[in-house]
Amino acid sequence: MRRGRFIVLEGGEGTGKSTLLPRLAARLRSRGVAVVETREPGGTSVGEGVRVLLRDELDPWAETFLFLAARAQLTAEVIRPALAQGVWVICDRFAASTLAYQGYGRGLDLQALRLLNGVATGNLEPDLTILLDIDPVEGLRRKGAQPGDVRTGTEALAFHERVRKGYRELCAASPDRWVLVDAAQPLEAVESAAWDAVAALLL
Amino acid sequence: MRRGRFIVLEGGEGTGKSTLLPRLAARLRSRGVAVVETREPGGTSVGEGVRVLLRDELDPWAETFLFLAARAQLTAEVIRPALAQGVWVICDRFAASTLAYQGYGRGLDLQALRLLNGVATGNLEPDLTILLDIDPVEGLRRKGAQPGDVRTGTEALAFHERVRKGYRELCAASPDRWVLVDAAQPLEAVESAAWDAVAALLL
Repeated sequence: MRRGRFIVLEGGEGTGKSTLLPRLAARLRSRGVAVVETREPGGTSVGEGVRVLLRDELDPWAETFLFLAARAQLTAEVIRPALAQGVWVICDRFAASTLAYQGYGRGLDLQALRLLNGVATGNLEPDLTILLDIDPVEGLRRKGAQPGDVRTGTEALAFHERVRKGYRELCAASPDRWVLVDAAQPLEAVESAAWDAVAALLL
Repeated sequence: MRRGRFIVLEGGEGTGKSTLLPRLAARLRSRGVAVVETREPGGTSVGEGVRVLLRDELDPWAETFLFLAARAQLTAEVIRPALAQGVWVICDRFAASTLAYQGYGRGLDLQALRLLNGVATGNLEPDLTILLDIDPVEGLRRKGAQPGDVRTGTEALAFHERVRKGYRELCAASPDRWVLVDAAQPLEAVESAAWDAVAALLL
């Protein structure tokens, strides 16, 4: 039996990952592909617990270790078993989120974060990462930010700009496994571009 | 102002760490030393949340990362600020627990765990670690295990034997910073031996 394919949706806030994910899964299923849809953190009971803890004000490394705990559990409990059975997995965020947010965003050491991601996932790499790219001002507006919102303050915006820059660098560094989709387009165009990349894995 | 001293109590189940800790703290306070008593995981709101999540059946690395998250937060939020103000800290478990339980006990790579501990704590090392050492059969009995209890089954007992062996090796490797106390003794004798080691830090 052929191993399933592992697809990850990445990108900043308000890029439409959670809207796109079930649409891609439905398209795959209509071609007879078994698909598991999941998200990180979350996707396991520990992951959902971690999601709650992340609401606190946290030390940046404590935050990182919580994400890694959720990732290790999701990989062991959900992703690897599915792939081994030939089931495809589409995941909302994975290891690259740690590089973008904790590395580029918060300034933690990227090399250390890569090592930690490798430990947490047993060096599992997505077959395809779809980067939904958008100007953070527009992304945060889509998430309901109002003018004067703390999330669109200068410092917060600078953080999200660093995250976006990080994602774009990661994408540029792995053109064979990453694809950038302009998330400012209408949903149909975003879905179409993302689907082109996913469909290439069916060949 | 002189930096506070950092004292850690380590050991397996039923060795009496949580009984001993407030007694040592009280003795220090009677000598005019300001002391913070804490425990790990726990000691912060994130740590207490992690403590709850640890009840699940977990991937060994997910478990490790949860402990590391709690440790990073406790170090940043409680331990380092206290030490910097000249306050002493006594902590029920710290980085060595990960080496003993996840390393020696579960078989995860010790060198990787040492690196991760260093990241989580910013390489903070206790000034003194008191190892409360006891035969696991006796320790588990003290924790209320009955004959036939799952915790005293062959596999569970072998795990606790490996943890004990690990602790003893860690202690033997750092005789200047670790002291082994026979926890099978009456509490007064345990407290007296532990206090001798703590009092040496007052000189």
